Amino acid sequence: MLVVMSKRATPEQIDAVVAAIEAKGCTARPIPGGQRVAIGVLHNPGAMDAAYFMTFPGVKDAIPVTRPYKLVSREFQPKNTVVRIGDVSIGDGGLSVIAGPCAVESETQALTIARLVRQAGARMFRGGAFKPRTSPYSFQGLGEEGLKILARVREETGLPVVTEALDHEVFDLVERYADIIQIGARNMQNYTLLRRAGRARKPVLLKRGLSATIEEWLMAAEYILEGGNPQVILCERGVRTFAHHSRNTLDLSAVRVVMKESHLPVIVDPSHAAGRRDQVIPLSRAAVAVGASGLMVEVHHAPEEALSDGAQSLYPEQFDELCRQVQAISEVFRDPRKDQAARG
Amino acid sequence: MLVVMSKRATPEQIDAVVAAIEAKGCTARPIPGGQRVAIGVLHNPGAMDAAYFMTFPGVKDAIPVTRPYKLVSREFQPKNTVVRIGDVSIGDGGLSVIAGPCAVESETQALTIARLVRQAGARMFRGGAFKPRTSPYSFQGLGEEGLKILARVREETGLPVVTEALDHEVFDLVERYADIIQIGARNMQNYTLLRRAGRARKPVLLKRGLSATIEEWLMAAEYILEGGNPQVILCERGVRTFAHHSRNTLDLSAVRVVMKESHLPVIVDPSHAAGRRDQVIPLSRAAVAVGASGLMVEVHHAPEEALSDGAQSLYPEQFDELCRQVQAISEVFRDPRKDQAARG
Amino acid sequence: MLVVMSKRATPEQIDAVVAAIEAKGCTARPIPGGQRVAIGVLHNPGAMDAAYFMTFPGVKDAIPVTRPYKLVSREFQPKNTVVRIGDVSIGDGGLSVIAGPCAVESETQALTIARLVRQAGARMFRGGAFKPRTSPYSFQGLGEEGLKILARVREETGLPVVTEALDHEVFDLVERYADIIQIGARNMQNYTLLRRAGRARKPVLLKRGLSATIEEWLMAAEYILEGGNPQVILCERGVRTFAHHSRNTLDLSAVRVVMKESHLPVIVDPSHAAGRRDQVIPLSRAAVAVGASGLMVEVHHAPEEALSDGAQSLYPEQFDELCRQVQAISEVFRDPRKDQAARG
Amino acid sequence: MLVVMSKRATPEQIDAVVAAIEAKGCTARPIPGGQRVAIGVLHNPGAMDAAYFMTFPGVKDAIPVTRPYKLVSREFQPKNTVVRIGDVSIGDGGLSVIAGPCAVESETQALTIARLVRQAGARMFRGGAFKPRTSPYSFQGLGEEGLKILARVREETGLPVVTEALDHEVFDLVERYADIIQIGARNMQNYTLLRRAGRARKPVLLKRGLSATIEEWLMAAEYILEGGNPQVILCERGVRTFAHHSRNTLDLSAVRVVMKESHLPVIVDPSHAAGRRDQVIPLSRAAVAVGASGLMVEVHHAPEEALSDGAQSLYPEQFDELCRQVQAISEVFRDPRKDQAARG
Repeated sequence: MLVVMSKRATPEQIDAVVAAIEAKGCTARPIPGGQRVAIGVLHNPGAMDAAYFMTFPGVKDAIPVTRPYKLVSREFQPKNTVVRIGDVSIGDGGLSVIAGPCAVESETQALTIARLVRQAGARMFRGGAFKPRTSPYSFQGLGEEGLKILARVREETGLPVVTEALDHEVFDLVERYADIIQIGARNMQNYTLLRRAGRARKPVLLKRGLSATIEEWLMAAEYILEGGNPQVILCERGVRTFAHHSRNTLDLSAVRVVMKESHLPVIVDPSHAAGRRDQVIPLSRAAVAVGASGLMVEVHHAPEEALSDGAQSLYPEQFDELCRQVQAISEVFRDPRKDQAARG
Repeated sequence: MLVVMSKRATPEQIDAVVAAIEAKGCTARPIPGGQRVAIGVLHNPGAMDAAYFMTFPGVKDAIPVTRPYKLVSREFQPKNTVVRIGDVSIGDGGLSVIAGPCAVESETQALTIARLVRQAGARMFRGGAFKPRTSPYSFQGLGEEGLKILARVREETGLPVVTEALDHEVFDLVERYADIIQIGARNMQNYTLLRRAGRARKPVLLKRGLSATIEEWLMAAEYILEGGNPQVILCERGVRTFAHHSRNTLDLSAVRVVMKESHLPVIVDPSHAAGRRDQVIPLSRAAVAVGASGLMVEVHHAPEEALSDGAQSLYPEQFDELCRQVQAISEVFRDPRKDQAARG
Repeated sequence: MLVVMSKRATPEQIDAVVAAIEAKGCTARPIPGGQRVAIGVLHNPGAMDAAYFMTFPGVKDAIPVTRPYKLVSREFQPKNTVVRIGDVSIGDGGLSVIAGPCAVESETQALTIARLVRQAGARMFRGGAFKPRTSPYSFQGLGEEGLKILARVREETGLPVVTEALDHEVFDLVERYADIIQIGARNMQNYTLLRRAGRARKPVLLKRGLSATIEEWLMAAEYILEGGNPQVILCERGVRTFAHHSRNTLDLSAVRVVMKESHLPVIVDPSHAAGRRDQVIPLSRAAVAVGASGLMVEVHHAPEEALSDGAQSLYPEQFDELCRQVQAISEVFRDPRKDQAARG
Repeated sequence: MLVVMSKRATPEQIDAVVAAIEAKGCTARPIPGGQRVAIGVLHNPGAMDAAYFMTFPGVKDAIPVTRPYKLVSREFQPKNTVVRIGDVSIGDGGLSVIAGPCAVESETQALTIARLVRQAGARMFRGGAFKPRTSPYSFQGLGEEGLKILARVREETGLPVVTEALDHEVFDLVERYADIIQIGARNMQNYTLLRRAGRARKPVLLKRGLSATIEEWLMAAEYILEGGNPQVILCERGVRTFAHHSRNTLDLSAVRVVMKESHLPVIVDPSHAAGRRDQVIPLSRAAVAVGASGLMVEVHHAPEEALSDGAQSLYPEQFDELCRQVQAISEVFRDPRKDQAARG
């Protein structure tokens, strides 16, 4: 924290701030400048509240200097975290594609799609059993029945499965069936759920909240790591801005900032960002080109009959083309031996 | 839904859209215009997905016409919902002020503040027992101990108490002790929690999410009403925008839009919007002036020692002045017999 | 500027940053902390580019400490600027209401409205002669003919007139006829226009840009003051956010921040923020309640026939009621002798 | 326009809206639905103001159906506009890279950089002679001297040059020297400048405003086309959102929406979006991968000595690598014969 005093601050006002800093058990270091004094706050045990200092007379500004997260920080752990599920690795420099329908609708549907996406190059299968829906009147997912179908898909196809845990009540159930447990964007700051995820023995895929800053996103991951689970994959899925021409605004620079700031792998979900099928392939190419560790894409063999999000689901042949293109793009600037989207 | 065809759409493309609408069990009504055809979708059973129609060839746009919410809508219930807790009413045209500390810290703290705010004109007491915190390292509240203190405050002062239920696990506990159960901004789309609130026998105070549209906010309330609980109070507390000069941007026009769109009462929390004490009184005045049914304000007898949000907590004498000012503003344009912020 | 080094920064990296700071003619002051070093940049001649330091190895962050503006700052001039036009003063603690149609359409229209708003309590008349329009196909204003009508309105009613200068070409013309020259939101960073305004002998009303930070807004004002014109009135008129339920989101906390940060008076335009008549009175009340020095409101005697923005123009009887209400609200917390909205 | 009546609207209210529509010279077509009536507005001569209808009793919503732009629309002209400057084409399906310093600082500087970027694969040279600066105290560019240097660069290297016209006063000058005239983000709605650009004989590069919707951006281009100049290149450069981890949020889905909505070519400026060198290459890859027709990138041979934006300027060897990578990415999904970034 740096407390910047007004040019007109009196020595008494400066002393009062120094005293307040020391009362919090920190060291205050005044730095006289040309026109004003700034006071560095050193040895603070954790993040401090800038607003607190703003209320002192003579204070012009209070500027946080250090980040509030620790375990997720690259300063704490310089080496990349690699999340391994069977023979799939996320975060090792290669590219992993997760694909499947928005919601699991039936065993036939799930198996049909799983076989198609595996053949195209997907390394994991996604599908919702518990769906967070804006409207109480919409299809809410098959529940445990959906989880059983996912287990059957894994058995049949060998693909690890990713599915969402909507709350900590169903978390046990999801943890039993899934290979990766997803925490959705609307739950990014559901701290009870994050604490439960911290006690899980399986990797967690943590989506970015609709208006989460990178700091808030990493702090949510910090909850999971602090709870004892180091296996976290971050997923950028678009944020809310003034622009309404796509459902959300995909924030690809966030991928680079997270890569610099944290050792956790970050993937991109272009389907929820776009909300429309015709943008999914171009945005997937862009996500891979910016350097994401993977993609999570919605695919349906008959999107017009999908019970949810059909409009953003790719046709299988489109997903095929997507895999071909992103694989080729990845090879332009990455070590091809690490890429896992390759067929065969 | 209105499906707008491109000027260059062929009759076959128009027919395909008509067929798709009818396959969904709706009525399609083509409306030929000067340059293009639009197709009205009538008798749809619920909200339809605009993106679905966007994927048809020849479609230029698909525009939702009706709102997805029902029970919360003023079209459904023209008369204002009035939420009554003891002799306090919210939504009857008067002004109700809720005040108290961010977090309950001790019985002495809570009682001290409760007596001060009651004397100043507050009609209800607020205080957190379970705190949602961005950081796992911050103070998380006293838990059930905090709830017991709140019950004691009610006993001593006669003030009904408002406190947050962070998840559905502690909901039972909170429901037992509190008079109004708060659902926080970060949980506005925690559907498990909303469903639980729908089964509660006590009023629910639903804060607007950080980037929630009014439609999403009302849909969250719809979950509660649909679950069987008609006692919902909405609370605007600032939204996230590009502007970072205050913690959030208080969106006062939302108050008016909600008042027009819904029969539910809407109050304003200026403390979380501002994040800084010196903005709380001006924003409180503005919130009352725009027509909010009430305020929820953070007050602390010793803000510099508060365990959370001290920087935005008012001193008791400031709260006193706040009550005096908002009461006078309310009388400028409202029926003074309804105002409840008045002392005595 | 404070340059924060990574915990893992080497002494050589720290030295390189110190050398770079000194190469820019500044003083570098390293501040060793518990875990990392931060380096204060002192005696910098002007604002420095934080991004520049971010590119050095071992640098974690570069944080601007001082504001880039000078002349507009309250640190530079603690006393409020009061802008006087005839017997009207803006910024002296009272409340001034400016009212009139969006566009001047004819002498009859302008005079009719001017008489109505003067009687209701307006102290100045507004009306556009040159209109910035999103579409090249929309009505663009009467041009110089409109300015002549404004001059005639002043002559007949005694009301000073405010009108917009769209570019520096018509600025001379507008300066000749108007009492206050408006710079519109879309031109807030039109530096050629700002420089021209700096040479004007008349007060300038500077609207906030649609997505301008307070710093950018004040820097735009700085251009005018630096050019030699100290008579600047700032006008908040809503900003662009994800929320689309009103045309723009009125940012009332900006009013308070500007009042603290700068000595320039700040008024509010609720009409452009709302875009709809039914929100103008509530938002006007809120703007006055938050502490704005004045309002600029669109009024039309026959809004349904207005050539632009009819939907947000008040009927004269509504404006009457607005003046009564805001006057009463202003008296709640301000010195009533300063209020100028009072009739008679 | 579709006017949606409330479920409780009376027949008289419906008739009043019909009458108002017809009074505007349009055709009203009531569409009775299951629960409410909607009224289509047909044969409207231009864009209508939705807010106007919102003010009628019984009206629930007024929804614009058609877009306000014409000439820029793909409905109006299905075929891509290809802008040709000498042997460089933008919009023909290939990839064109424009590169150079933020500002022209000297002939040596400009020529040095131009030769480096030409060799790496750039097809055009950029450099500012008139700089829009947030602060009046910053370097404002060399003015006409800078334009002369640009002309000399073209002569020496054969590269066409792009430079910004800050206002219509210097437009004549810029038009004389430049091959493409840039209109900056802050001037996107400077209508005087847009009208001047409509009379220019040279192509115009129109940057997207910081918070411009796609509709507003295309309407700005419509001004230029309507004025008689069909040679417009659109340039996405990041928008302002709540996210502050990069200078702006690059909105790559906008590129796809513009490609669908308009026949004008669209390129991307990753340098201004990022504001930091280390993000420029990844964002350039993403921009090309999403399908942009070109890039505009800042390059400097000695960024640490640049007079503006040094922190976001690439070193020449980085630009070399950028060209190699984007060329390879472009070939993944485009016809390589069209790509112009290739060396030689």
